[in-house]
Amino acid sequence: MRTQVGIVGAGPAGLLLSHLLYLAGIESVVLEQRSREYVETDTARIRAGVLEDGPAELLDAVGVGARMRAKGLVHHGIELRFDRTAHRIPLTELTGGRSIMVYGQQEVVKDLIAARLATGGTVLFDAHDVSVADIGTDRPVLSFHQDGWEETLECDVIAGCDGFHGVSRNAIPPGVLRVYEKVYPYAWLGILAAVPPSTEELIYCRHERGFALHSLRSPELSRLYLQVSPGEQLSHWPDDRIWEELRTRFATDDGWTLADGPVLEKSVTAMRSFVVEPMQYGRLFLVGDAAHTVPPTGAKGMNLAVADVQVLAAALTRWYASGDPASLESYSADCLRHVWRAEDFSAWMTALLHVDRSDGFGDRAQHARLAYTARSRAAAASLAENYVGASRPWVGNGAHD
Amino acid sequence: MRTQVGIVGAGPAGLLLSHLLYLAGIESVVLEQRSREYVETDTARIRAGVLEDGPAELLDAVGVGARMRAKGLVHHGIELRFDRTAHRIPLTELTGGRSIMVYGQQEVVKDLIAARLATGGTVLFDAHDVSVADIGTDRPVLSFHQDGWEETLECDVIAGCDGFHGVSRNAIPPGVLRVYEKVYPYAWLGILAAVPPSTEELIYCRHERGFALHSLRSPELSRLYLQVSPGEQLSHWPDDRIWEELRTRFATDDGWTLADGPVLEKSVTAMRSFVVEPMQYGRLFLVGDAAHTVPPTGAKGMNLAVADVQVLAAALTRWYASGDPASLESYSADCLRHVWRAEDFSAWMTALLHVDRSDGFGDRAQHARLAYTARSRAAAASLAENYVGASRPWVGNGAHD
Repeated sequence: MRTQVGIVGAGPAGLLLSHLLYLAGIESVVLEQRSREYVETDTARIRAGVLEDGPAELLDAVGVGARMRAKGLVHHGIELRFDRTAHRIPLTELTGGRSIMVYGQQEVVKDLIAARLATGGTVLFDAHDVSVADIGTDRPVLSFHQDGWEETLECDVIAGCDGFHGVSRNAIPPGVLRVYEKVYPYAWLGILAAVPPSTEELIYCRHERGFALHSLRSPELSRLYLQVSPGEQLSHWPDDRIWEELRTRFATDDGWTLADGPVLEKSVTAMRSFVVEPMQYGRLFLVGDAAHTVPPTGAKGMNLAVADVQVLAAALTRWYASGDPASLESYSADCLRHVWRAEDFSAWMTALLHVDRSDGFGDRAQHARLAYTARSRAAAASLAENYVGASRPWVGNGAHD
Repeated sequence: MRTQVGIVGAGPAGLLLSHLLYLAGIESVVLEQRSREYVETDTARIRAGVLEDGPAELLDAVGVGARMRAKGLVHHGIELRFDRTAHRIPLTELTGGRSIMVYGQQEVVKDLIAARLATGGTVLFDAHDVSVADIGTDRPVLSFHQDGWEETLECDVIAGCDGFHGVSRNAIPPGVLRVYEKVYPYAWLGILAAVPPSTEELIYCRHERGFALHSLRSPELSRLYLQVSPGEQLSHWPDDRIWEELRTRFATDDGWTLADGPVLEKSVTAMRSFVVEPMQYGRLFLVGDAAHTVPPTGAKGMNLAVADVQVLAAALTRWYASGDPASLESYSADCLRHVWRAEDFSAWMTALLHVDRSDGFGDRAQHARLAYTARSRAAAASLAENYVGASRPWVGNGAHD
């Protein structure tokens, strides 16, 4: 087989890239090791569910936003809760009208798969044992097994959109990548519960027992998280204990109550900040989590992947049109500007809200920072513009400034 | 001897407290172990030289601001310099008209000594071996040696204004104070040079070789600092090497030049964030550096001392007027709000600008934060309002909100 752009991974990054390339008249093939059903319905892992304004507008602009506009929830603020008191950060008011879209990553994936298949795109599910080769040449190759057969896919370039644990990054020769990493002394225990959310907006709560987050999936499904130790065993957290701990941390002096309900899933996720530089080698380009991860506190994961995709789609479009490799060569440098901004913000927002018992000075300084952020318009506006992503130049047409 | 308020230390904190108490009709005696000449002229140690708007207005309001208004330099902005480029933070524009006053700590001390002596105040210089006793009773005592005689001073309350290395804090019984501390992996090498400043506003410069600061004392005297290792030996830094390193770090692409001149002094200062809680025990109240220190990056040291003094003077005034101890009892809690805000800001501004080679992730995130701070009005406004101290309620009359 042969294509122009070989894409490893049918997550939001790989599928959106394939779709943007299709709109630009560039062929691609997406390889995904898991089944379509798994990719579209797996909710067992914690998944991003917040789209910034820009990525949401992009999905509209490229014709895959209809279901998101129908089912997604537009939020105009978030709540910071501490000292048993709620403090609203009015995102829209502070950012000149911007907002966020609460819409699960699986839903974006479903919409993109439907769009790719409707326009004759090739997404190969159950493509196992993908390997990436010859990326130092101008004919890189993807090999994989499907239905018991070994297949090869010759490409002009390969996009590694296969996440933090994917194979793409490891195809780059040793010594090329520099790894930047920050590990946090805590993890998130997350549940999906069949209960209407007890809040209309996300609640980021700092309690002396640890951080808690009240998020949501839909008017019927709540997503809740607790800061726990990194090695925490789920078996120590029966549902009753989870709800009790959530009620303790979210408690306010004004009588707010948390509704509970059946827990559909639970999981523990480690927190990590991770970046490799550069995000490219030869004809291989790393996109999204394959190149960088953020702790989920700032809701940046899916948005960063979309930002990378925009840069790469625009670079490939220019390269195929002109033959000039300049835009491809600057892919990594172009991405790393938005990547590091989001990495810094995500680490900042994580430190703003989580409890680190080993750092007494940090704990007191954190409390002062939270109180200041809640009372200063400038500080709240800075948080807001990072949260909605307004500081990145989104134009909604695949071009990148 | 007997007085109402015994004050240990004739720095800005102790002298200002004595002056505010005098204005409120309360007697005090200030004990200072060093000579008047030393206190007024010692410039060998690095000294704070930036007053926020509020403290400067307070000095005016209590009649000791005339020389500051004549000789001090009002600044309306600071510069962030990185990647060989200058970025101005317009403090006044971003804070609704506020500014900072560049005026050395020794000058404030001179003005306050003159005011105390002119109004019949008692400031005992060369008071050696001060010890603080009986603070758990309502008759605390200060003992000291002067001119070879042992003296005792009975007080109603004692104010420990004797700095980080003073004796007051150690008079509090073991186990009472909780210490919060943060030590930084770098120090400042500072020089005072007889050369007109090469800049009208302070330059905070981040260079891959380390932080540098261009400050000033007067139109003829420059103050310059270099980030160095904590154990750095001054003997390794002849003047030529210092100027060359300064030129390297401050270099820009637009041809800015640094004028050099005779180095009058040089010193190395460790960086430390330090807070004890509570800031009081019995009849002893810790003020300024005796209770908390900040790294000098945010220029908060003298301002925090003034803020503590305002709280204590107001509390003592109410206590003497009414006999109600409530305001004295809440001294520590009232101070710790502004203390922790300034501690957090000082640590943030330090991390924004210094190079920590052990933290690759932090280094990249820092660069993104600097670039963001320079281009975002919200982020710059947050820096500005912390720098000018507008987020603290200054009323200029000794009262504290």
